[in-house]
Amino acid sequence: MDKSVFLEDLDAFAYREALASGEAIVLIPVGSLEQHGPHLPLGTDTILSSRFAEGVARRLDALVAQPIAYGYKSQQKSGGGNHLSGTTSLDGATLTGMARNLVKSFLNQGVRHVVFVNGHFENYQFLYEGIDLALEELGLKPGADQSVLLLSYWDFVSQDTLTKVYPDGFPGWDIEHGGVLETSLMLHLEPARVAMDRLVDGPAAVLPRFDRLPVVPERTPATGCLSSAAGSSAAKGELLYGQVVDDLAADLAEELLREPEDATAP
Amino acid sequence: MDKSVFLEDLDAFAYREALASGEAIVLIPVGSLEQHGPHLPLGTDTILSSRFAEGVARRLDALVAQPIAYGYKSQQKSGGGNHLSGTTSLDGATLTGMARNLVKSFLNQGVRHVVFVNGHFENYQFLYEGIDLALEELGLKPGADQSVLLLSYWDFVSQDTLTKVYPDGFPGWDIEHGGVLETSLMLHLEPARVAMDRLVDGPAAVLPRFDRLPVVPERTPATGCLSSAAGSSAAKGELLYGQVVDDLAADLAEELLREPEDATAP
Amino acid sequence: MDKSVFLEDLDAFAYREALASGEAIVLIPVGSLEQHGPHLPLGTDTILSSRFAEGVARRLDALVAQPIAYGYKSQQKSGGGNHLSGTTSLDGATLTGMARNLVKSFLNQGVRHVVFVNGHFENYQFLYEGIDLALEELGLKPGADQSVLLLSYWDFVSQDTLTKVYPDGFPGWDIEHGGVLETSLMLHLEPARVAMDRLVDGPAAVLPRFDRLPVVPERTPATGCLSSAAGSSAAKGELLYGQVVDDLAADLAEELLREPEDATAP
Amino acid sequence: MDKSVFLEDLDAFAYREALASGEAIVLIPVGSLEQHGPHLPLGTDTILSSRFAEGVARRLDALVAQPIAYGYKSQQKSGGGNHLSGTTSLDGATLTGMARNLVKSFLNQGVRHVVFVNGHFENYQFLYEGIDLALEELGLKPGADQSVLLLSYWDFVSQDTLTKVYPDGFPGWDIEHGGVLETSLMLHLEPARVAMDRLVDGPAAVLPRFDRLPVVPERTPATGCLSSAAGSSAAKGELLYGQVVDDLAADLAEELLREPEDATAP
Amino acid sequence: MDKSVFLEDLDAFAYREALASGEAIVLIPVGSLEQHGPHLPLGTDTILSSRFAEGVARRLDALVAQPIAYGYKSQQKSGGGNHLSGTTSLDGATLTGMARNLVKSFLNQGVRHVVFVNGHFENYQFLYEGIDLALEELGLKPGADQSVLLLSYWDFVSQDTLTKVYPDGFPGWDIEHGGVLETSLMLHLEPARVAMDRLVDGPAAVLPRFDRLPVVPERTPATGCLSSAAGSSAAKGELLYGQVVDDLAADLAEELLREPEDATAP
Amino acid sequence: MDKSVFLEDLDAFAYREALASGEAIVLIPVGSLEQHGPHLPLGTDTILSSRFAEGVARRLDALVAQPIAYGYKSQQKSGGGNHLSGTTSLDGATLTGMARNLVKSFLNQGVRHVVFVNGHFENYQFLYEGIDLALEELGLKPGADQSVLLLSYWDFVSQDTLTKVYPDGFPGWDIEHGGVLETSLMLHLEPARVAMDRLVDGPAAVLPRFDRLPVVPERTPATGCLSSAAGSSAAKGELLYGQVVDDLAADLAEELLREPEDATAP
Repeated sequence: MDKSVFLEDLDAFAYREALASGEAIVLIPVGSLEQHGPHLPLGTDTILSSRFAEGVARRLDALVAQPIAYGYKSQQKSGGGNHLSGTTSLDGATLTGMARNLVKSFLNQGVRHVVFVNGHFENYQFLYEGIDLALEELGLKPGADQSVLLLSYWDFVSQDTLTKVYPDGFPGWDIEHGGVLETSLMLHLEPARVAMDRLVDGPAAVLPRFDRLPVVPERTPATGCLSSAAGSSAAKGELLYGQVVDDLAADLAEELLREPEDATAP
Repeated sequence: MDKSVFLEDLDAFAYREALASGEAIVLIPVGSLEQHGPHLPLGTDTILSSRFAEGVARRLDALVAQPIAYGYKSQQKSGGGNHLSGTTSLDGATLTGMARNLVKSFLNQGVRHVVFVNGHFENYQFLYEGIDLALEELGLKPGADQSVLLLSYWDFVSQDTLTKVYPDGFPGWDIEHGGVLETSLMLHLEPARVAMDRLVDGPAAVLPRFDRLPVVPERTPATGCLSSAAGSSAAKGELLYGQVVDDLAADLAEELLREPEDATAP
Repeated sequence: MDKSVFLEDLDAFAYREALASGEAIVLIPVGSLEQHGPHLPLGTDTILSSRFAEGVARRLDALVAQPIAYGYKSQQKSGGGNHLSGTTSLDGATLTGMARNLVKSFLNQGVRHVVFVNGHFENYQFLYEGIDLALEELGLKPGADQSVLLLSYWDFVSQDTLTKVYPDGFPGWDIEHGGVLETSLMLHLEPARVAMDRLVDGPAAVLPRFDRLPVVPERTPATGCLSSAAGSSAAKGELLYGQVVDDLAADLAEELLREPEDATAP
Repeated sequence: MDKSVFLEDLDAFAYREALASGEAIVLIPVGSLEQHGPHLPLGTDTILSSRFAEGVARRLDALVAQPIAYGYKSQQKSGGGNHLSGTTSLDGATLTGMARNLVKSFLNQGVRHVVFVNGHFENYQFLYEGIDLALEELGLKPGADQSVLLLSYWDFVSQDTLTKVYPDGFPGWDIEHGGVLETSLMLHLEPARVAMDRLVDGPAAVLPRFDRLPVVPERTPATGCLSSAAGSSAAKGELLYGQVVDDLAADLAEELLREPEDATAP
Repeated sequence: MDKSVFLEDLDAFAYREALASGEAIVLIPVGSLEQHGPHLPLGTDTILSSRFAEGVARRLDALVAQPIAYGYKSQQKSGGGNHLSGTTSLDGATLTGMARNLVKSFLNQGVRHVVFVNGHFENYQFLYEGIDLALEELGLKPGADQSVLLLSYWDFVSQDTLTKVYPDGFPGWDIEHGGVLETSLMLHLEPARVAMDRLVDGPAAVLPRFDRLPVVPERTPATGCLSSAAGSSAAKGELLYGQVVDDLAADLAEELLREPEDATAP
Repeated sequence: MDKSVFLEDLDAFAYREALASGEAIVLIPVGSLEQHGPHLPLGTDTILSSRFAEGVARRLDALVAQPIAYGYKSQQKSGGGNHLSGTTSLDGATLTGMARNLVKSFLNQGVRHVVFVNGHFENYQFLYEGIDLALEELGLKPGADQSVLLLSYWDFVSQDTLTKVYPDGFPGWDIEHGGVLETSLMLHLEPARVAMDRLVDGPAAVLPRFDRLPVVPERTPATGCLSSAAGSSAAKGELLYGQVVDDLAADLAEELLREPEDATAP
């Protein structure tokens, strides 16, 4: 079991050996339990962020912690909305508390770098806040040896990949919810968890440029998806996964494995 | 004074007359006190969101509340970073608390619709959370008569305007901090508060695709701006302001002043 | 613009010059959005605390931050009560959070002294708590170089001034809400925002010596004012404003601009 | 034991009989554990508020709950300051939480009226906030059958009593900390807990009109008292206690025992 | 009065003498206001924890602070349930806040060891959390000079005593609520507050092995007691009290009064 | 995939079918990421609670939600202590927030019963608090149709099983951490994740009857286990797992699948 990259599989003594180098990196996947249409499972965001974290960890000899499996409230403009059954959400204070506690716990144990790998759009700012509060409590300031990184995996999809995945033009990240990107990735990584026969095609949702609360349920398509997954394929998923893991691992290696004195180059 | 759109200028009895129609709309500008380079004042975000709110209010016969003049922590990727003097920020819980309290207070008084007009990128999710918590406490659900809208004014800049304002190509919203958009708007609206002679030109900042905390201060340009304001003009500001106020007022009128039964159209 | 005392008008580089001396003083006005009868605007407390802060800042070469424009819940014994439309209030945690965040932000930037200038009775204890929590987090203890002061402007009205402003006897600070003091100050400072023709005369409210919740609305006079503003004048306002700014500026200069070793004298 | 007014002495079945009338009144004393000079015990505020509550409860056939025995942070202007050993304080959130929890718990059990009897100046606003939050959660609005009252016992000292207790003029409530009022009351009610031989005479403290934090310790007299207790006597204490209990019981009877339809008279 | 072990009776100067040794121990009793059947008073838990603290304090020359007189919500499996009138409870955050504030306040004053003496089962984890948060804020780590202990008095009842008190077999701590242990202790320590004639005999409650919320009220016996108090006696109470005070005092003396270098032995 | 009991595998439409009956039961495993000695993985508590939930769900046709994979701080008396690397913990507020959010989210979606299956001793009270707060917000009272159950799986180990698993006598639940019970269960359920060759035998830890904070690290055995796992076997694990799943499923069926009118029988 000592070859696992998953923290839950390690025993405490094997983990302490990893810490002993002073260079341990822990990646924390963050997802959601959220409706993703009739063809994708509720756990899609958690599954994908975990798989990206796993891929990167193998490249960097890093560890993957248990995911934060529930995310911030789904918003109508990016996830269809929190009113849809299947979407099971945390409020901002709790998600912030999760991030704050995990950062403090891991850095206090001697982890050098913690990296949050986000897979649910709405989480980002609350994770940021949790990290910032933790660092303030720990007294870590610019120049510190330890650090925390926060990223969403889709920000590492290259323009070239986008063009290949969306030959008819990319509809925008905001409505990529249960669409071609997520579906292709799932077809590549977890085909048994995708039901392509249940996929419903249709035009992309057109939502106002504001958020309205309480939501107007009718504005979300009946599928719960904001853009169609038609055109998804395992091949596209393989391309996406491979390119993102490559770039993400390269960027993190450049950022975290270089000598500290070089840390200021972008 | 009874013609003022600003709530702080109204007396309680005049305000109650506005409420009596059952159709009162209150706009709340949200900004920040944040460094905006050597040529723009610290209050830029609050000034601009207030001016947009004022412009829209005059069209809709709505009221403008006192702005939330301090914003969430400036992030390096969108505002240069919270470590820069002049940037004076709130944590997530406090900003969420502000939004939650104001929503509850205004809706309890009988305001029909509250509209947050955001002018500082980092605020958005915390305002959303405050609104959502307030509506939960008030027991307002889909179909309710009262509503809260949340928007950032730059989401209403049209593609056409963008092309005119950035003839060499739009660098992206994320690095529009103290750049051509904000500077042009200030030149149009508050020319006495802009010091174009202090403007420093230079290439746009290139920041990693992740957030790193603690920040690496050297990654923010010395000016604190992420893109150059060279090429700003009052004429561009006038174009931006006019187009956004037009579209924003039109969208809000369509959304809020129509009969309730039509509320589901996008 | 570089002569402005208002922080929102300064650019970040001008602000940093002010900080460079190590002696910068920032005053934060704190007010409310609260009904003040038919003759005074809802923003009266914020307007007045801002004007007092401005007056003092000019004497001390200090800076004035954006006001905290919303205050703690209006209490029936001091402000008529929170049930009155126009009164838009924060709960204790949010107001405390505002004060805590601003103190931490300003002191971390290198401001030497922060001074809260309060203009709404109910705010005081929650501001105090925010300041105390901030100093605990910052680790500032007696003898520290930096400090925070908290005051309500009416505590600087002299006995002599009171006698002149209330020739028939002072009714007490607790029922000075929309009364002679506030109205006279507004007539002097913001005459266009006062509607003396709407003023309603009448006896002072007689309220129980306890607070009762839920309030008994009938105990607040229909005007929302606890004492009559009849007898207000711009001349009285000028006297009040001048005397308070004189004394406040003198006390702050004595407290904050002397050598640290003298700081213990009252 | 069934004649005790103290809730802690009642068994649950006797208590339920008291509730069965629908008219039960519970008084909650609130004090502090705070230095009170060399002659008074640390528990003075809790002892006095408990004794006032007991006296009133006997008149009204009400019950007295266990006191909130720790109070909000002692402030230099009213209690000498929180830096003095012996002063053991709660932050605002915890004191607010205590009040909120007790109000909810008692009103949910069917208590008709809860009355907080405060004996420590700094507590007041945080108790108010706790009460207000509880009533909001319970959905109690003006006109409700149940209510909560909040008072400080010294607000019921009459002008006539003051003149007798302070024949040379009343120094003001703000510096009545370990002074003639508290000492006289303790001499009357708990003489064994007063050490008059340890009393230190001296002039009243002269404190600035602002609060400064961190405090300047030298501004508090060495005794910790802000005014001298010289001139205290059990006779004055008897006068104070008798008059306050009389008036307090009368006001509460008038407010709480009348028919509901009369509740609006002051 | 200077011989009292109760902090509320000491004056600040006498207290400071106790602190001057650097070895002061403060015990804080924690109880509840909770129904304890028809024969025991609502304050039973607070009374008993206070009496245990007092007994131990006399042995160790320690001090007893005012009790935390309200406890965490009564759970059906251990206290009958929070739905029973007479049970007046705090939520977790407030009880945690009480413990956190008291630990910080006492340790900052120079108390060497704080000992919480718990008398209400449900309190334990929330007290633990409050202590842990306080120590984190104070920066106290293993090896620190100051410490906090947390215990429930019944964990010090010896097997031998149990056998004598329950000759027919001990029913288990979870259903000891208003049963033989508490009743015997009250008969020994506070006989006037026990009404043995009101005692209702009956079989012990049989509750599920899970907690169900909302509770099923019928599962709690009508008495509110989970086991019968029949067989209680003052003699058993004397045995219990004497043995526990002996062992508790011995353990604390061993733990706290030895030289620090020995502190690691169990 | 539609036969999975795991919510993360279901798509939203399949989940809604499960809800449509009005009888859906969701089980939420709760564990920890905690050192469990040299022979068990850090994820032991989460793995075991998940496996128990899965086993019960298959019997009851219920669903299993993603686990809460991080738990409350490990306490020295029950888990060795939070100072041990590998132990990654949440504070009380965050764990309470997790439970509160999940209860609200699932009950609002129409789940009939939520069952928390706890596998980490220290979690229990904070889960209870989260559940209680959620029900209060939802307004669910005794007699409601929906309910939440909370249990720890070891409370369902029968006396008979205990005797077989611990032929030399059961050492007590408090020191069962990485001992025979957990190790046997892991050997049965996840043999590849157990390293019996790394197991260290030794006497059970003898810890004081109080908690001391900061902890005295030397009191925890070097292995981090409080009792020896020697004597563990897959056969014992099979016995334990089978008996507990049987009893747990039977009790839950009796409690949740009967007609509501019978709900009061234990």
